[in-house]
Amino acid sequence: MASKHTNMEIQQLIDNWATAVRAKDIKGIMSNYVPDVLVFDIAPPLLCRGADAYRKNYEEWFSTWQGPIGYEIRDLSITASDGVAFSHSLNRIHGKRTNGEDTDVWVRVTACYRKMNGKWKVTHEHISVPFYMDGSYRAAVDLKP
Amino acid sequence: MASKHTNMEIQQLIDNWATAVRAKDIKGIMSNYVPDVLVFDIAPPLLCRGADAYRKNYEEWFSTWQGPIGYEIRDLSITASDGVAFSHSLNRIHGKRTNGEDTDVWVRVTACYRKMNGKWKVTHEHISVPFYMDGSYRAAVDLKP
Repeated sequence: MASKHTNMEIQQLIDNWATAVRAKDIKGIMSNYVPDVLVFDIAPPLLCRGADAYRKNYEEWFSTWQGPIGYEIRDLSITASDGVAFSHSLNRIHGKRTNGEDTDVWVRVTACYRKMNGKWKVTHEHISVPFYMDGSYRAAVDLKP
Repeated sequence: MASKHTNMEIQQLIDNWATAVRAKDIKGIMSNYVPDVLVFDIAPPLLCRGADAYRKNYEEWFSTWQGPIGYEIRDLSITASDGVAFSHSLNRIHGKRTNGEDTDVWVRVTACYRKMNGKWKVTHEHISVPFYMDGSYRAAVDLKP
């Protein structure tokens, strides 16, 4: 298993990433992903393959927010070896959209990492909410941890 | 990075797990999880903590199927070091429910592993479908890879 130092490196990556999301800093965000990152995103399709496609998702999503995005990370767990790691957390996204609506939603995030040339990079990310099994098939965007 | 042998050990765990799901073999399924497994399941709540809670989810879910469950794993990727690993895939679940309906859905699965006492165990699992961003908030259970 990894040293405390390794966990701190990944914690730092996550902190930098969250700061970049809040500031809608595309370059800062994308610096964390490998070019062939494989993402299970919160919106269709089933999978998003590659950093170029994922960048477009971020850009479109950013354009729907007024000002900075509220982003809070809770129950973060990091597990790392020398070259492979994963983390999971509940992340709150909140703020005002360009259509005037207020968004306040908790999502589940799993991120998977590899150390490449001495730097940790995200090779896989999975973001979701569950959905109600009451026949409505409605995404559970109203849940709180 | 890990040897080919390590990847084969995790492939074997996944194969055993899928066989157990198809047969609704609760004991076979639960043998893959650590007692404090943390699951982001496809149904609410946001998270399911612990193998006892997860077992109940499986039991309830199994009781909604007639006969065996169709389970197919596609686009499986395994990344492993000596002690930490993760995998992701698109899994198809299909068959007849006890209410007479036919289910045929593709879900995204990310599983995270640690090697404990010489055996790989799942410590975290994330299963989801995306949802439509058209204002309907409808879970995208109709997507095909």
